[in-house]
Amino acid sequence: MEWTIDLNSDLGESFGPYVIGQDASILDEITSANIACGYHAGDHNIMHQTVRMAVEKGVGPGAHPGLPDRLGFGRRYIAVDPDDVYNMTVYQIGALQAFVSHYGERLRHVKPHGALFNMASKDATIAQAIAEAVAAVDRNLLLFGLSNSELIQAGTKAGLKVVHEVFADRTYQPDGTLTPRTAPNACMEDLDLMVKRVVRMVKEGKVHALDGTDLEIQADTVCVHGDDPKALAFVRGLRKGLEEHGIRIQKVGC
Amino acid sequence: MEWTIDLNSDLGESFGPYVIGQDASILDEITSANIACGYHAGDHNIMHQTVRMAVEKGVGPGAHPGLPDRLGFGRRYIAVDPDDVYNMTVYQIGALQAFVSHYGERLRHVKPHGALFNMASKDATIAQAIAEAVAAVDRNLLLFGLSNSELIQAGTKAGLKVVHEVFADRTYQPDGTLTPRTAPNACMEDLDLMVKRVVRMVKEGKVHALDGTDLEIQADTVCVHGDDPKALAFVRGLRKGLEEHGIRIQKVGC
Amino acid sequence: MEWTIDLNSDLGESFGPYVIGQDASILDEITSANIACGYHAGDHNIMHQTVRMAVEKGVGPGAHPGLPDRLGFGRRYIAVDPDDVYNMTVYQIGALQAFVSHYGERLRHVKPHGALFNMASKDATIAQAIAEAVAAVDRNLLLFGLSNSELIQAGTKAGLKVVHEVFADRTYQPDGTLTPRTAPNACMEDLDLMVKRVVRMVKEGKVHALDGTDLEIQADTVCVHGDDPKALAFVRGLRKGLEEHGIRIQKVGC
Amino acid sequence: MEWTIDLNSDLGESFGPYVIGQDASILDEITSANIACGYHAGDHNIMHQTVRMAVEKGVGPGAHPGLPDRLGFGRRYIAVDPDDVYNMTVYQIGALQAFVSHYGERLRHVKPHGALFNMASKDATIAQAIAEAVAAVDRNLLLFGLSNSELIQAGTKAGLKVVHEVFADRTYQPDGTLTPRTAPNACMEDLDLMVKRVVRMVKEGKVHALDGTDLEIQADTVCVHGDDPKALAFVRGLRKGLEEHGIRIQKVGC
Repeated sequence: MEWTIDLNSDLGESFGPYVIGQDASILDEITSANIACGYHAGDHNIMHQTVRMAVEKGVGPGAHPGLPDRLGFGRRYIAVDPDDVYNMTVYQIGALQAFVSHYGERLRHVKPHGALFNMASKDATIAQAIAEAVAAVDRNLLLFGLSNSELIQAGTKAGLKVVHEVFADRTYQPDGTLTPRTAPNACMEDLDLMVKRVVRMVKEGKVHALDGTDLEIQADTVCVHGDDPKALAFVRGLRKGLEEHGIRIQKVGC
Repeated sequence: MEWTIDLNSDLGESFGPYVIGQDASILDEITSANIACGYHAGDHNIMHQTVRMAVEKGVGPGAHPGLPDRLGFGRRYIAVDPDDVYNMTVYQIGALQAFVSHYGERLRHVKPHGALFNMASKDATIAQAIAEAVAAVDRNLLLFGLSNSELIQAGTKAGLKVVHEVFADRTYQPDGTLTPRTAPNACMEDLDLMVKRVVRMVKEGKVHALDGTDLEIQADTVCVHGDDPKALAFVRGLRKGLEEHGIRIQKVGC
Repeated sequence: MEWTIDLNSDLGESFGPYVIGQDASILDEITSANIACGYHAGDHNIMHQTVRMAVEKGVGPGAHPGLPDRLGFGRRYIAVDPDDVYNMTVYQIGALQAFVSHYGERLRHVKPHGALFNMASKDATIAQAIAEAVAAVDRNLLLFGLSNSELIQAGTKAGLKVVHEVFADRTYQPDGTLTPRTAPNACMEDLDLMVKRVVRMVKEGKVHALDGTDLEIQADTVCVHGDDPKALAFVRGLRKGLEEHGIRIQKVGC
Repeated sequence: MEWTIDLNSDLGESFGPYVIGQDASILDEITSANIACGYHAGDHNIMHQTVRMAVEKGVGPGAHPGLPDRLGFGRRYIAVDPDDVYNMTVYQIGALQAFVSHYGERLRHVKPHGALFNMASKDATIAQAIAEAVAAVDRNLLLFGLSNSELIQAGTKAGLKVVHEVFADRTYQPDGTLTPRTAPNACMEDLDLMVKRVVRMVKEGKVHALDGTDLEIQADTVCVHGDDPKALAFVRGLRKGLEEHGIRIQKVGC
C-alpha cells in the first residue's frame, strides 16, 4: 500500500506596500496553495504574482476566500448571513480563477480562511452557502475543509469532491474541532511529535485529542503555515519526516 | 438594408445600504448591461442580483471594471501603472464572470468605467493593459470602447471583437473625444435632437463636433444613463425615436 | 413642574455619491444630531457639511462612532476586542470634533451606532471601553446610551454626564432591552400610541414591555429616524404631540 | 551662535496584521514624529501605540495626513479637489489629535504625506486647502513643508508657524524641488556627503542642485526614513555627524 498526503499553505497575504510570508520559498515545499483573494488579505497585484509562482512551481492553485476585514485579517467573527457568504465566496473564487485561467491552468481547490473557515466547520448553514457557491462556479473544484466538519458534509451534499484537512501543529478537542488559539495547549512545537501524529493520522486514521480521547480522522492534506520566520524550517522538517515514514508528498486529486 | 444598434447602460452601482439607479426598469429597455464589480461601486450582493435580473430579462451581462475609489465613484484620475490596471481588470472581470456562469450564461462584454474609460480612450498604454487583460480572461469577450479611441485600437490589436460606443447626450470635441463634463455644452437635453444625432451616426457614420466639424464615427452601441429620475423617460424616448427611424434595438454581436 | 425632552437623530449617513436621509429637513425638527464618522457611514466631506448644517440650525453636534463596516452599515456584530473599540471610538470622536471646532463650537455628545450601540448596552467590557474613550478625549462630552444599559453605568463610572435614551417606535423586552428588529412586534407604527408612550416615559418614568411588564425608564432624549420617506412626517407628529402634552423639546444639558 | 536642527520621520505606517518600520528604535533618535492617520497607512490601534511611544520618549507628535489610498501607500497622484483635501486634512488631524490629548499633550505639527506632500509643494490651491485646514483645527500647529514650497507660502499666509524641511538623502532640482524618485540620481547614499550637505544647509542656508546651481534653502528640520533595514544606522550616523559639526538636534519650536 502506498501512503500519500498533500501539503497546503495560505499564501498571497501581502497587500500593497506590506509584505507577509515567504511565499517563494514555501512554494518549493508544498503541493497546494491557498491564495488570498483581496478581502481579508492580498490584492489584485499580489494575486497575479502568487498565481504565477504557484503555476511555475507546479503547485495547485486554490482560492482562499475570507471575510471582508483587512484590519482583522479575516480572523474576527462577523455576523454575516448565508446569502452574503455565498456571494462573497463566488466573487473571490471568480477573481482568483481569472488569474489562473490567464496561465492556461484550472483553479484546483477552494479553502475558506480564518473566521469563515471556523464558521464553516461548525455552522451547517454557512457551510452549505460556501459549498453551493463553490459548486456554482465550477463543479470540478475540490473543497478543502476541516476533517469531519460541517463543511466537509456540505461539500459532499453539494456533489463536490471534498478534501479532509488536518493540522500538524494544532491540538484537537474531544469533539474533533481544533483547540482555539486563545486556549493554552492550542499549538504544538515539537517537530518529532508532530511528524508522528501526522503519520498516525495518515496510516491509522486516528489522532489523540487533548484529553486522550482517540479520534477518527481522515488526513488528505495537512496545513502548514508560512508567515513566521520558523515556518520554512518547520515545513521542510515535516516533509522530510513524513517521507522517511514512507508517506509521499503529492498534490491531492492527482 | 437593416439598421441596428445596441443600447448599453451602467448598472449595479448600489452598495450595501445605498441605492443608486432604477436598474429593474432600465433593464427592460436596454440590450447590454455594464455591471459594476465592487471597485468603484457595487458589491458582491448587488452584483449577484443585477446579473440575475439581466439574465432573466435577456440583457447581455457585461463587466464594468473601475478604479478602486468608492468615494470618488471611479471618476477621479488616479496615477495607476499599466500592470496595476491589467490586474484590476482581470480581477473584476473574473469576479463578475463567476456570477454569470452561475446562471449558465457567458459574460458577453467588458466596458471600463469613468476615469478608467477616459484614460483608456486616450492613453495607449492603459488601453493596451485593459485589452490584454480582457483577452487573457476570455478571447470571446466583446470590448466596448469610445468610437475611434485608443481602447478600440488596442482591442483590435489584442484580437478582440470591438464595439464602438457613442453617446446620445454628450457632445464631441473636434478630435473625436467627449467634451469633459466640467465644460459648458458637455451635455445635451433635447431628446429630438439626440435621436436625430444617433440616427445620423448609425446611418451615415457621422456626427457634428461642437465647433461644427463633421466627424466620422461608428455607432455599434449607444450609452444611456440610469442614475437620475429622468433617465428612464429618456431611454424610452430614445428607443422609440430610433425605432421610428427604422433602427432596430438589438443586442450587439447577435 | 416643567417637562422637557431632547430629540436626537442619526445623520450624515451619506457617502461619496450615495445619499441616505433628508438631513436638512430633519435638522429643523431635532435638538441633537448623531453624526456618522466615516466608519459605518459618512465621509470627511459629508461630515463637514452635516456639522455645518447642525451648527447653523442650533442643533447640538454629536459623534456617532460605529464599527468599520460600510457594507453592513455598522449593523452587524463583529468580534472586536475592547482595546480596538476604545481606539476606534477615540479616532472617530477626534475626527468629528475637528470639524466642530472649525465652527468655534464644542462637540456636545457621543452615541455609538448600530451593533456597537447594542454591544455597549449589554456587554460591560465594551461599554467601559467606549465610556473611557469618550472621557479620554473630553470629560465634558455627554454620553448617550440606552436607558438603564451597561453603557449608562459605564459612563457614570467614568465620570461622564450620561443621557438616557428612549425609543418611540420600538418595543421593549421585559429586561429593558429593545426587541430585536428581526422579531415580530419590534417596531410600532401608530403615532398616537407612540406619543402616549413617550409622554408616560417622561412624566412617570415608566413604559410597558411587550409582555405587559411595567418597566422603570428614564427619558432624557428620544431617538427619531431620518432615513425613510415617512420619517419627517413622523418626527413632526411626535414633536407636536409631545408639545401638546406640555413637554418642551429642548437640547439636553442646556 | 548656536546651530540647531529638528529630525523628523514618518512613523505609524503599520496596519492591522502588517508591520512596516522600526518605530520604537527610530523614536530614540528623532525629535518629531509624523504619524500616519489611517488613510494611506496606519489604523486606530497603531496610531494609539505610536502616539504613546512618541510621548513617552519626548518626541513631538505630529499628524501625517495622506490620500485615501492604502493600496498605493498614498504615493499615487489622485485628482482630488481642494474642498476634499481640506476635509480629509481636518479629519485626519482631528483623529490623531484625540490620541495625543488622551496623554495630556498637544499635537505639535502637521506634515502631509507622499502624493499629497508633492501636490502641496507645487500646487498653490492644494497648499492653501491644507494650510487652512490646519489653521481651522488649531492655529498653534506647526506646518511642515518642503523648504521654499507653495505649502510654506500658504502656511505663512494662513497665519501658521511654518517649518522648512530639507532632505538629507535626496537631490534637488535647479527649481528647488526634489528630484523625483523615478529619476536617476534622485537618492544619495554616501553618509559623509549627506552630513556635509545638511551642515551647509543649516550654517549657510545653501545646497547644490543636481546641475551645480547653488540654491538658497532654509533647514529647520531634516527628514529621515525609518522603513528600511539600513534606516536606523543612517539616522544614527547623520545625528552623530551633525553633532560633531556643532549642530544640536532639538525639537523644533522649543
